[in-house]
Amino acid sequence: MMTKADVTEMIMEKKRAGGTTWAEIANMAGLGEVFVTSACLGMNSLPRDVAEKVATGLGLPQEAAVVLAEYPKKMFDQAVPTDPCIYRLYEIVGVYGETMKELIQEKGGDGIMSAIDFDMQIEKIPNEKGDRIEVTMSGKFLPYRSW
Amino acid sequence: MMTKADVTEMIMEKKRAGGTTWAEIANMAGLGEVFVTSACLGMNSLPRDVAEKVATGLGLPQEAAVVLAEYPKKMFDQAVPTDPCIYRLYEIVGVYGETMKELIQEKGGDGIMSAIDFDMQIEKIPNEKGDRIEVTMSGKFLPYRSW
Amino acid sequence: MMTKADVTEMIMEKKRAGGTTWAEIANMAGLGEVFVTSACLGMNSLPRDVAEKVATGLGLPQEAAVVLAEYPKKMFDQAVPTDPCIYRLYEIVGVYGETMKELIQEKGGDGIMSAIDFDMQIEKIPNEKGDRIEVTMSGKFLPYRSW
Amino acid sequence: MMTKADVTEMIMEKKRAGGTTWAEIANMAGLGEVFVTSACLGMNSLPRDVAEKVATGLGLPQEAAVVLAEYPKKMFDQAVPTDPCIYRLYEIVGVYGETMKELIQEKGGDGIMSAIDFDMQIEKIPNEKGDRIEVTMSGKFLPYRSW
Amino acid sequence: MMTKADVTEMIMEKKRAGGTTWAEIANMAGLGEVFVTSACLGMNSLPRDVAEKVATGLGLPQEAAVVLAEYPKKMFDQAVPTDPCIYRLYEIVGVYGETMKELIQEKGGDGIMSAIDFDMQIEKIPNEKGDRIEVTMSGKFLPYRSW
Amino acid sequence: MMTKADVTEMIMEKKRAGGTTWAEIANMAGLGEVFVTSACLGMNSLPRDVAEKVATGLGLPQEAAVVLAEYPKKMFDQAVPTDPCIYRLYEIVGVYGETMKELIQEKGGDGIMSAIDFDMQIEKIPNEKGDRIEVTMSGKFLPYRSW
Amino acid sequence: MMTKADVTEMIMEKKRAGGTTWAEIANMAGLGEVFVTSACLGMNSLPRDVAEKVATGLGLPQEAAVVLAEYPKKMFDQAVPTDPCIYRLYEIVGVYGETMKELIQEKGGDGIMSAIDFDMQIEKIPNEKGDRIEVTMSGKFLPYRSW
Amino acid sequence: MMTKADVTEMIMEKKRAGGTTWAEIANMAGLGEVFVTSACLGMNSLPRDVAEKVATGLGLPQEAAVVLAEYPKKMFDQAVPTDPCIYRLYEIVGVYGETMKELIQEKGGDGIMSAIDFDMQIEKIPNEKGDRIEVTMSGKFLPYRSW
Amino acid sequence: MMTKADVTEMIMEKKRAGGTTWAEIANMAGLGEVFVTSACLGMNSLPRDVAEKVATGLGLPQEAAVVLAEYPKKMFDQAVPTDPCIYRLYEIVGVYGETMKELIQEKGGDGIMSAIDFDMQIEKIPNEKGDRIEVTMSGKFLPYRSW
Amino acid sequence: MMTKADVTEMIMEKKRAGGTTWAEIANMAGLGEVFVTSACLGMNSLPRDVAEKVATGLGLPQEAAVVLAEYPKKMFDQAVPTDPCIYRLYEIVGVYGETMKELIQEKGGDGIMSAIDFDMQIEKIPNEKGDRIEVTMSGKFLPYRSW
Repeated sequence: MMTKADVTEMIMEKKRAGGTTWAEIANMAGLGEVFVTSACLGMNSLPRDVAEKVATGLGLPQEAAVVLAEYPKKMFDQAVPTDPCIYRLYEIVGVYGETMKELIQEKGGDGIMSAIDFDMQIEKIPNEKGDRIEVTMSGKFLPYRSW
Repeated sequence: MMTKADVTEMIMEKKRAGGTTWAEIANMAGLGEVFVTSACLGMNSLPRDVAEKVATGLGLPQEAAVVLAEYPKKMFDQAVPTDPCIYRLYEIVGVYGETMKELIQEKGGDGIMSAIDFDMQIEKIPNEKGDRIEVTMSGKFLPYRSW
Repeated sequence: MMTKADVTEMIMEKKRAGGTTWAEIANMAGLGEVFVTSACLGMNSLPRDVAEKVATGLGLPQEAAVVLAEYPKKMFDQAVPTDPCIYRLYEIVGVYGETMKELIQEKGGDGIMSAIDFDMQIEKIPNEKGDRIEVTMSGKFLPYRSW
Repeated sequence: MMTKADVTEMIMEKKRAGGTTWAEIANMAGLGEVFVTSACLGMNSLPRDVAEKVATGLGLPQEAAVVLAEYPKKMFDQAVPTDPCIYRLYEIVGVYGETMKELIQEKGGDGIMSAIDFDMQIEKIPNEKGDRIEVTMSGKFLPYRSW
Repeated sequence: MMTKADVTEMIMEKKRAGGTTWAEIANMAGLGEVFVTSACLGMNSLPRDVAEKVATGLGLPQEAAVVLAEYPKKMFDQAVPTDPCIYRLYEIVGVYGETMKELIQEKGGDGIMSAIDFDMQIEKIPNEKGDRIEVTMSGKFLPYRSW
Repeated sequence: MMTKADVTEMIMEKKRAGGTTWAEIANMAGLGEVFVTSACLGMNSLPRDVAEKVATGLGLPQEAAVVLAEYPKKMFDQAVPTDPCIYRLYEIVGVYGETMKELIQEKGGDGIMSAIDFDMQIEKIPNEKGDRIEVTMSGKFLPYRSW
Repeated sequence: MMTKADVTEMIMEKKRAGGTTWAEIANMAGLGEVFVTSACLGMNSLPRDVAEKVATGLGLPQEAAVVLAEYPKKMFDQAVPTDPCIYRLYEIVGVYGETMKELIQEKGGDGIMSAIDFDMQIEKIPNEKGDRIEVTMSGKFLPYRSW
Repeated sequence: MMTKADVTEMIMEKKRAGGTTWAEIANMAGLGEVFVTSACLGMNSLPRDVAEKVATGLGLPQEAAVVLAEYPKKMFDQAVPTDPCIYRLYEIVGVYGETMKELIQEKGGDGIMSAIDFDMQIEKIPNEKGDRIEVTMSGKFLPYRSW
Repeated sequence: MMTKADVTEMIMEKKRAGGTTWAEIANMAGLGEVFVTSACLGMNSLPRDVAEKVATGLGLPQEAAVVLAEYPKKMFDQAVPTDPCIYRLYEIVGVYGETMKELIQEKGGDGIMSAIDFDMQIEKIPNEKGDRIEVTMSGKFLPYRSW
Repeated sequence: MMTKADVTEMIMEKKRAGGTTWAEIANMAGLGEVFVTSACLGMNSLPRDVAEKVATGLGLPQEAAVVLAEYPKKMFDQAVPTDPCIYRLYEIVGVYGETMKELIQEKGGDGIMSAIDFDMQIEKIPNEKGDRIEVTMSGKFLPYRSW
């Protein structure tokens, strides 16, 4: 039975062979780079029609579109990630997590930023002292409520 | 010996008593909210003159300014944070970490976004379907190099 | 500086001395038992006026009302709880978690039940084969979305 | 030797191919959705005659009915689940576990809610501010006893 | 506020000073040794009248009886115990756990032995090849049920 | 090379096919149920002649008898077991471990109950309030000694 | 209430002040260095008369002798020790553990070396290529038995 | 590519088929039992000529000698071993580790016993009260030094 | 799809068959030993032209060069490494980590040594008291900054 | 009883009050910066006469010199360090650990670099593209040996 991991491997093989970029795959999908990449890595589900566009665009078998549209089980095995690029993000949460909570709650009251009703953009910003990566996250503010 | 934890508690007491906000403390400091809050929570060091402005502004003893200017040991005891507001940030790294790595590296080559040469802003954006929290991170791109 | 743990201990002392029940404290608050109990245990914040009613009703010092109204940092130290009563709840999530995900998503599409926009009731239901505990949880369905 | 994991995969394949829902499989079984789904996922055993109805209804080989009726070893590998939908349930136990224990014991005396003599229902409740998921659990109250 | 740990320490001090045995304390209580010892160690609650007999018998302050009768939070911090005497018990569960499950379920069907509706005796049995410790546990069989 | 896990799987297949019980296999062996079951699950070694009786009785290949007689490496991967039937046993050690140590040592002096020179019986005891499982463990008392 | 940790600290203070060695304390006790040191560190109990000799010899209060004679709870908090001197011993178990099991069982049959009926000596052996530490352990062979 | 694990399995198969003992294999090698066994289990490297003698003596393919001579990566997956025979060794380090450090350092100054420049013997010593296992370890004393 | 692990295995096989050293492979690459070895072990990416030289020099298939040039996911599975050679390095970080931080920050102000803009050399230095290994690390100093 | 942690705190207080640097303290000691700093942080022992020079130079009580000369127990509590400056060093061990092992063993045969007979220097090297930190480690090569 074809799994999301199988489809991710197929896509990685297409990328290696054809030099296709995530930006191009996002273009096929007509959706944002972060969302489409995460779906191709098995961490989100594509709407069925978008899945078909991606499968067709990359020349994947028909079942791959079905799989891309299935709801994923989001598993991350490393509680503390080891890859330096991902660890830096984890470290930011460790170092700034309480700060972020203080400021989110000062601005909105007791509540959280949703990670479900959520989107993100990632850009490289040219800079003469060294280029920078800019990450923009936007999540719905969800207030706790009394009952 | 006065510690950063002692100073954080003093600041929290001032905030409780006087209703002072992080925004007002950042104002005293003349620096950004995220940075000043993280320094008051013991996760960053303030430049000495900034530390004095904060200590004076809040009516803290003189030694508190020295402590705010000392280099912190950044400890976060929970490998997986339990507070829902902070966990959601951790979850974003878990779910989107590999996606972020793919896109950072597609845009910049093999490398990482620095968590040291780094800054962050947090805003609440009014929205009729429910207000949103927007987090913007910017970190220098550091390429791996061959040697 | 008075902490939420201090206030919890004060309330437990009042309960021991006076035999006050959680039901009676919820009554003072005019809110539900689960919510009020969780706030008294330091896991939720009471609206300021409700906090004052509880503090007055139990004969706590004025600062306790301020503390009950502060936004909590929700910490649970045991990733796997050891108390049998709490472990059984953890076990239910372990045994039925994937089942619950399958059914939530079959009914609502790819998404989750919110633990923030959430409420819960707990009742004892008399039963001649042995009384039963009934727990009812209600959380807003939050769909993942494409972007 | 055919395992419960093998049977789960067969059922998932049937669902993908035929669009069968858990509700329809529960219907074949003549039992509740939560119980039947958990048995199909390998976390409970179906009575032998029910297992045969499910195997026949889905067109599975005869041995699958034997396997569905075998007593499972209930393994959950992630002490802290990472899938957001399941994590929220875990978080509820973390945040409200002590509250639930306080109230169960206030209502019934020193004891627990059984996770064995136990049942659960899950419904989606339409709501104009956003649909809600309602989970109802019922477990026998088991008192500790002196001896 | 006097805690169960405080009362345990008082009892240990009485035992050290007076050479009182657990058997004698169980005698004061009129209940079994295992149950009374576990309650004195803070892992079970004594019925109120029994608690008073123990407190009086040992010359403890009146509040100690209240505390002995309170419902405990059962915490065991070492997931894997290190004391050799306790580790051997843990090892028995590790080595024989699946065996015990196989036999409990062969004898009773799919179900468990309750650890709540449960009692235990411990005896030393003289034996010329070396004395033996005999532990007898009895727990209600709880069958899983379909619903 | 045939492993103990291979032999366990063979035995489980015979049990599924022929409805053989552990009691019947223990009968073939002429030894107790707990011991024989644990050896069939790979956690103990059968004496060579007993191993041959079991292999013959179940119709296993000759090498299986050799394997059943080999000394096992006793591995249990879950430090905290998740199956409810096994977890309850673990919980008993967690809740009553210190109690058991206190009583073993009050009766025998500083020492332990051996888990090596050890045996166990498991019975289902009919009871009108609900059948009970009775577990009897007997281990040699091993005193610590000075040197 | 005086604990074993308190007595250990008293002994360490005496050692620091008076330059007393473990060898001298073992001499006072009339028992071996390893055993006496381990008892002074709280990991074994001294016979009552030996405890009195040690307490008198070191000038400790009378209660210290009672405490040295009490049965310890053996706790070691670091599952993996970090001190290099202790880690090397742990590493030897990790690297040679299976080898030791193979040889113990080749020589004695299925069984173990007891850590309870056990003694140990530690000597420094002069050697012109660099002195060596020699550790000799002797434990009773305990065979598994069938039942 | 043939691995050390492959060679270990080959040797175990030869031992099962031919009843060869570790003592006989050590004899083929002309080196000590502990060292040769550990090398056959993949935890040490044999000198090339010794490896050839072992491979020839056991009738292994030529590549096995190459593999036995390769430098191992010493992996032990269980931080806390579960096999009772190996756990007892781990327990000895836990219970006596600090004692051993105290005595090594009292005899030699601040330093450690090397686990690299190290050897070990294991013998069974007949004893009428029950045979004993004697383990002798010898490691070079490595002093810390100032610089 | 050929992975970095596949290529590492190919290289190890070439080394075993041909006796090629890391120094020779570094020579083919025209880069340093540490960097080239780490890339061959899958922990760094080689520039494309360098990867081709290595693949050609070792007689690997063309796809191997593509794989060697891909950006790695740096995974290290053991939080605490067990191999003695690697553990010593980990221990140095544990023992000297805070020291290194103190000195790096005394020399450069609040900041870190980059592990990305980083290089390392390893040499064996002959010494009549026993040869020494010399490791030299150089990483860019990255100061924290206020914003 | 004065502990190494007490002495570390005294030294940190002197540094805060008097602006003394580690370089100056190393000067008082007449030994290297890394070694002296690590001893002041409680991770190494100073020779007695050196300890007295440091205590005198910093104006510490006499007992502090005794404590600085005592052999430490090297404890590092965080298996994975969180401070970014220390984490980078840990990451280097994770990423390059196997590489370092390969090269140490290629240059010296099967063996390790000692962390005991070991020294280290840390320098800041001015560089117009950004200053660099240079760390040089030197440890005795310890070969494994056959026996």
